[in-house]
Amino acid sequence: MFQTFDSPSSPDQGPPRLTLLREEMAAEGIDAFLVPRADRFQGEYVAPHDDRLAWLTGFTGSAGFALITGREALVFVDGRYKVQVRAQVADVFTPMDWPAQTHVGWLAQRFPDGAVLGFDPWLHTMEEIGRLERDLPKITFRRVENLIDRIWADQPAPPAAAITAHPLEFAGEPHDAKRARLAKEIAATGEAAALVTLPDSVSWLFNIRGADIPRNPIVHAFALLRADGTAVLLTDPAKCADVTDHLGPEVAVRPEGDLAEVLRETGGPLRIDPQSTPQAVADMLAEAGIEARHGSDPCRIPKACKNAGELQGMRDAHLRDAVAMCRFLAWFDRSDQTALSEIDLVRALEGYRRETNMLREISFDTIAGAGPNGALPHYRVTTQTNRQLAEGELIVLDSGGQYPDGTTDITRTLVVGEAGAEEKRAFTLVLKGMIAISRVRFPRGVAGSHLDALARYPLWLAGMDYDHGTGHGVGAYLCVHEGPQRLARGGDVALQPGMILSNEPGYYREGAFGIRIENLIVVQPADPVGGGDNRDMLDFETLTWVPIDRRLIATEMLTPEERAWIDGYHDICRDKVGPLLPEECAQWFAAATEKL
Amino acid sequence: MFQTFDSPSSPDQGPPRLTLLREEMAAEGIDAFLVPRADRFQGEYVAPHDDRLAWLTGFTGSAGFALITGREALVFVDGRYKVQVRAQVADVFTPMDWPAQTHVGWLAQRFPDGAVLGFDPWLHTMEEIGRLERDLPKITFRRVENLIDRIWADQPAPPAAAITAHPLEFAGEPHDAKRARLAKEIAATGEAAALVTLPDSVSWLFNIRGADIPRNPIVHAFALLRADGTAVLLTDPAKCADVTDHLGPEVAVRPEGDLAEVLRETGGPLRIDPQSTPQAVADMLAEAGIEARHGSDPCRIPKACKNAGELQGMRDAHLRDAVAMCRFLAWFDRSDQTALSEIDLVRALEGYRRETNMLREISFDTIAGAGPNGALPHYRVTTQTNRQLAEGELIVLDSGGQYPDGTTDITRTLVVGEAGAEEKRAFTLVLKGMIAISRVRFPRGVAGSHLDALARYPLWLAGMDYDHGTGHGVGAYLCVHEGPQRLARGGDVALQPGMILSNEPGYYREGAFGIRIENLIVVQPADPVGGGDNRDMLDFETLTWVPIDRRLIATEMLTPEERAWIDGYHDICRDKVGPLLPEECAQWFAAATEKL
Repeated sequence: MFQTFDSPSSPDQGPPRLTLLREEMAAEGIDAFLVPRADRFQGEYVAPHDDRLAWLTGFTGSAGFALITGREALVFVDGRYKVQVRAQVADVFTPMDWPAQTHVGWLAQRFPDGAVLGFDPWLHTMEEIGRLERDLPKITFRRVENLIDRIWADQPAPPAAAITAHPLEFAGEPHDAKRARLAKEIAATGEAAALVTLPDSVSWLFNIRGADIPRNPIVHAFALLRADGTAVLLTDPAKCADVTDHLGPEVAVRPEGDLAEVLRETGGPLRIDPQSTPQAVADMLAEAGIEARHGSDPCRIPKACKNAGELQGMRDAHLRDAVAMCRFLAWFDRSDQTALSEIDLVRALEGYRRETNMLREISFDTIAGAGPNGALPHYRVTTQTNRQLAEGELIVLDSGGQYPDGTTDITRTLVVGEAGAEEKRAFTLVLKGMIAISRVRFPRGVAGSHLDALARYPLWLAGMDYDHGTGHGVGAYLCVHEGPQRLARGGDVALQPGMILSNEPGYYREGAFGIRIENLIVVQPADPVGGGDNRDMLDFETLTWVPIDRRLIATEMLTPEERAWIDGYHDICRDKVGPLLPEECAQWFAAATEKL
Repeated sequence: MFQTFDSPSSPDQGPPRLTLLREEMAAEGIDAFLVPRADRFQGEYVAPHDDRLAWLTGFTGSAGFALITGREALVFVDGRYKVQVRAQVADVFTPMDWPAQTHVGWLAQRFPDGAVLGFDPWLHTMEEIGRLERDLPKITFRRVENLIDRIWADQPAPPAAAITAHPLEFAGEPHDAKRARLAKEIAATGEAAALVTLPDSVSWLFNIRGADIPRNPIVHAFALLRADGTAVLLTDPAKCADVTDHLGPEVAVRPEGDLAEVLRETGGPLRIDPQSTPQAVADMLAEAGIEARHGSDPCRIPKACKNAGELQGMRDAHLRDAVAMCRFLAWFDRSDQTALSEIDLVRALEGYRRETNMLREISFDTIAGAGPNGALPHYRVTTQTNRQLAEGELIVLDSGGQYPDGTTDITRTLVVGEAGAEEKRAFTLVLKGMIAISRVRFPRGVAGSHLDALARYPLWLAGMDYDHGTGHGVGAYLCVHEGPQRLARGGDVALQPGMILSNEPGYYREGAFGIRIENLIVVQPADPVGGGDNRDMLDFETLTWVPIDRRLIATEMLTPEERAWIDGYHDICRDKVGPLLPEECAQWFAAATEKL
């Protein structure tokens, strides 16, 4: 079992650790210390070694940070974690409502002029520190070695998982070709090299995968790509034993500690991305007198635009995952549902995914929220919150798998018995938005921010909405949350063929129920349409083929086109997934894919 | 008659003027000279005195610029003016396809290092010159007095129209209150004053109107608003004879030539908007050692968010304008249509608007494009292009009036006799998009760029689109094109109550026909909707109440909701406009507003 259900921390652990930290701060002459959730790779997941925020405060959410002074211990979390943080931290910590309350605002108003703010320059990006220094001109910034690491006696070892080669069949392009392609662009700008600090970019660039953190098969490493196409992979050489041949002679492996030396050897100008590069690297460059040019991670767009091999892998992974999902849904429908709990659902679903014999990991902790728990969009069930299913309740079930050929992410809303009219109406409004995105065609140049409203329009007209984006980018056997493309207000990157997105509108009624319907989709060149103009347009290929519960649809609310879309979708499910299903779910599947 | 139909220039005039300009350039040691279309106020219309581009080249479009060297004379225009520029300029000028071809690109590739580029620093914004200097580091920039003015023997005098007070009833807020409100924000930033260079901002700020240019009742003037609420209006004091009392003791009037002195008297920091401030002002500040802070025109958002008085004026102006439009449409339907030409339509419509006895100006040159002329979105009819109407043709009729209480802008698509099936299908697709915007409700924070796709979705699904924004901001008895709000991909300002927008999707089939349907709409707080959540949402109030031709609608393509919207719209037309119409159009109006 990948997923666990215990509450991983206790509020009791925090106070003595806070005392130890304050002793270190006093010894260093530091008046305040920043404890971010991030590690030096700025990803969504951190290794146990890097889980400093949770160790200190007890708070285990995926986003947040603490600001510790001699008297105050502030834990800043966003709306998602407002309830969770109160349950997880002791009274000595004060939860702060980010971003309404900010550390900048607090420091500007409460911190004496000239007082010293300490931070670990590896854990904060250049952009973050630059903004702090600009907004807080009267305080003193002090770079220090991480004070948590000094007091954390039984700190787990840093991750050291062996790196493996990602087969060319699934990567779709050899890494020397990738390097040559990107190096050409670096050379054209006159830069000597580009530093790549995002682990999914590094993993994509060299066609390697790892197991340094849970859920995402990325390698914890930095990389330097030079204008001549040669590269340095900065990570523990011991992790690379199995990929020496794969990396070949143009990729040198050096320990991360050699970074300063490698940068000096290469010289400038060096491209760095201030949004992800640690402040420590900027300091290193300044000390060495190397010209730093701010630009984008060179893998940003190429990684997002999946090639034919990656797309075929994703299609295959999605059919395999659809079999697991259908088996699960059929099992759920024949079960005594009110005897089940949220945890039972998570266990059963992971079980069916494991039975594919191809599951490497789940792609995130399954969200299984029944009744009012479904109204928390990012709910994660624990033994303490686990809810027994009750008649008439909806269940938001958002899950995915990591397979060698691809990453999946799917949400279906389940119902225990018969759904109420309110629930069906809301489900159908969400479905209309999800269909609008599935059906859209659009000219090149359109970005996700321009399409987001199409998914919300039916809800908006009914005075409803949802407080998350409509979709995020997804990697190919990489991170399930991948940038830069998004179907959301901030998604300002033009959509390009090969970009994979989730399409997941929802609706959440606090204390009552939640709804979300999610497929993955790929941007592709659109076929010309009869009677249209010869415009160069794009549309979406669907990757996810799992029936959408017809019993939750208020058919009379659909337009003929929407109804035809659902029927057509279920026809394709039948064609693609039907032949792969075991006999035991044939009857269920036939009913689930019937025309409306 | 405000509108004229002659072609205002001839290609013959250009070559001798070009020769004169090149003599001046040689005398000044200048290798290239920029001739923009803009005056120092960067607006859409220029006074005859400032129409230097047209005088030199013959090109009369509303956007473009020339780059003149000793051997080349390049005229950069965008797609709208590709055809027109060829007809208007002599062979010595080379039309350039902006923005695919740029002056920066041309200068970078063809202009020798160190060669001298001359420009009039009053006619280019700081942003524009800053970008040129950054992108062309190897050439020499030389500020000069305008060389065209030196050789233009019979240059018309600068505009000197008397300034009038805009009645408080229509302005809705006294100008001392506006100044106090804006000054508070300026004071909060620590700035001494803000410079306002956009004439519609100046006109709005002091509740004054003018007649310095056609179509827009703005005053050509700069203004300085100080942090204490006092202000300086920089314009010819002779223009202000009628508004001395209106301006009052807190607003000093000084000649524009006093600007440097006024800036020195006030000191810094001074807020300037680099997107509109002439480079000459930046030079002035640098010379005087006054700190310039880049920021937005302080009137930008307040001017866009119309108050109750402005909105009531706009509503009244729109009902008055609707009477003129309905009388025109009734006249058109009872005319022998194929005996009419595009110019006849423009004349008749202006005639009906004049008969309101309130028309101060038209708000732009009426676009009346029949048949293939309708496929040119910005078509302006002249005696040379004037087209006789033919059976079955569509006519795009886009027009508006300037009334003392408000500005109107409306497009209706007319048909001569019976429309074809293709035309009706396209019209209905456009209408569906126009209805989608009319019906939308959305949460605060949403910008026009997020809504634009809703208007395009029905066309996109059919493989169609239109190459202009869905809507622009509109002023209240000010410019018919007003920023910053827009319903378009670039419209990234959050929509706020009181903002007025056009809603004007269209469709253009080259060489065949054009379609556009346009109402003006106002952002307003939305009433709660039954069964919805208590979200703080916005929606649109409609200002325009003129029937949409039912004979062009393929009713079977509408959803029940869309059909109800059209019927409801026509019901309100009947209630609001019916009682104001003369007997002669009662029968036409009853038929035009019947249920579908």
